[in-house]
Amino acid sequence: MGGDYAPKANVLGAIAAHELLSPDEQLVLIGDTAQFKPLIVEAGFDPDKFEYVHTDEVIGMGEHPTKAIFQKPNSSIAVGYNLLKEGKLDSFASAGNSGAMLVGAVFSVKTVPGIIRPCLCTHVPKLSGGVGVMLDVGANADCKPDTLLQFGALGSLYAEHVMQINNPKVALMNIGEEDEKGNMLSLATFPLMKDTCLFQFVGNVEGRDLFNDKADVIVCDGFTGNVLLKLAESFYIVTLKKGIKDEFFDRFNYENYGGSPVLGVNAPVIIGHGISSPLAVKNMIMQSRDMIATGLVEKIQAAFK
Amino acid sequence: MGGDYAPKANVLGAIAAHELLSPDEQLVLIGDTAQFKPLIVEAGFDPDKFEYVHTDEVIGMGEHPTKAIFQKPNSSIAVGYNLLKEGKLDSFASAGNSGAMLVGAVFSVKTVPGIIRPCLCTHVPKLSGGVGVMLDVGANADCKPDTLLQFGALGSLYAEHVMQINNPKVALMNIGEEDEKGNMLSLATFPLMKDTCLFQFVGNVEGRDLFNDKADVIVCDGFTGNVLLKLAESFYIVTLKKGIKDEFFDRFNYENYGGSPVLGVNAPVIIGHGISSPLAVKNMIMQSRDMIATGLVEKIQAAFK
Repeated sequence: MGGDYAPKANVLGAIAAHELLSPDEQLVLIGDTAQFKPLIVEAGFDPDKFEYVHTDEVIGMGEHPTKAIFQKPNSSIAVGYNLLKEGKLDSFASAGNSGAMLVGAVFSVKTVPGIIRPCLCTHVPKLSGGVGVMLDVGANADCKPDTLLQFGALGSLYAEHVMQINNPKVALMNIGEEDEKGNMLSLATFPLMKDTCLFQFVGNVEGRDLFNDKADVIVCDGFTGNVLLKLAESFYIVTLKKGIKDEFFDRFNYENYGGSPVLGVNAPVIIGHGISSPLAVKNMIMQSRDMIATGLVEKIQAAFK
Repeated sequence: MGGDYAPKANVLGAIAAHELLSPDEQLVLIGDTAQFKPLIVEAGFDPDKFEYVHTDEVIGMGEHPTKAIFQKPNSSIAVGYNLLKEGKLDSFASAGNSGAMLVGAVFSVKTVPGIIRPCLCTHVPKLSGGVGVMLDVGANADCKPDTLLQFGALGSLYAEHVMQINNPKVALMNIGEEDEKGNMLSLATFPLMKDTCLFQFVGNVEGRDLFNDKADVIVCDGFTGNVLLKLAESFYIVTLKKGIKDEFFDRFNYENYGGSPVLGVNAPVIIGHGISSPLAVKNMIMQSRDMIATGLVEKIQAAFK
């Protein structure tokens, strides 16, 4: 039910994803079945190919995350997380209230033991054609050095297993390339990353390095990541409005990636963009599948044991 | 002497600016006269139209700012600041070592009484055609709420007097528009700005609002401003490399603005981009002239009295 174009975009995305899933992979649609079953029939798709869990509450995009998730136990987000926690689902994705999705993940499946704070990860298109990741992009507005160090490990594991990047290059977002540049946070994080054996650290990168190949994984606090991500998105929207067609800018389209995985919780969770289209929903489902299939969560659990 | 294309770009920029200055405005070129006088003659310009101060030391782009400015008293930066301090210059601009320029400003003409920390300001092109400012963009990697509040006042005064924006709208860069969004710094800054009578506060803006008209002045800590600025610059470079011609992207060209003013010190100071071209140098000089002509420094001093 989540997202500005729900439930239609979600239904059409689920139908598109179903074509790509193997027979032993089952999609469960959670929400107001009275609303979306007719849409499935309308699209000429057999409704029996999905499983359904009916819910009749909706968490609005503007609602307070923590309150909403407890006050609306029959919302698609609350129900989804209950099923995930009980192991009845292997992954959970929604384009609904991002805050409720984050809070729900931590309260239901809980943070992986050893992880200080879970974080939100985003895909970044590279000029050379590849794709990298940046994290955190908004789950933790204030971070400490040891948290950033862990984000590096989480991003590296995601890049290696889900994105199949061999020995990912991890960098710290900073205001200069030199070791001694930075604010108090990045200055304190640098030596931790330099000495770590959790990932391949390649040093500091700057705002201008987001789209080049200096790093596959760029680590920053959630405040910095959020403002950078939103600035990058606004550029993409400018190019769209101006009718500029270019392969690189096309790859900015979040629809092609799906959503933002929550890394550091005990199950695959993906938070979609509020304006998720059918294509975005389809890719969010495929991304969930990849997170399950590659055993990312188990690999994260093992790394932090 | 400062900048990657010095002294040629500096000489050509000075010649171009000279055409636009009135007879009572005098340009002083500081550096190795043996190197740049022949360039002036070569350009077919009368060398007597400039004043000269000969220097024979150069602070390299990679040198440690504080050490360099004291160890090289006969560098163009050190000499320029001495002349500025003695009142023999009304403003000083250089495309040399930015750190040395910042340190030099604070050590020579000193911070305006009442100002906690001077900061670095940058021009931001607006989609609608105007230009706004963002500050700080790198002078203060770590900031406190009262420092950000002052940046709002400094930016507002610059926008009002130098950019001639009437009653400038000042906003706080944040991770959400709502009052209660943010990291510890922005959460603590918001109420200070909301209650201030130093400027017109219009609330929080996000990374996506940099180029729209929600605010004329966007305030952030120097870490955030620096990574945002460098990301924006990298987009401009991508559009250049891809041969995308567009009026909006053209206005990203820093050459059209000049350089970054240092706000909060007792004299007009402008730090140019390391890759300053003749056009950038010319505009840096015109920007210095505007800072002198509008009495910006006196207005800042009066506001913080």
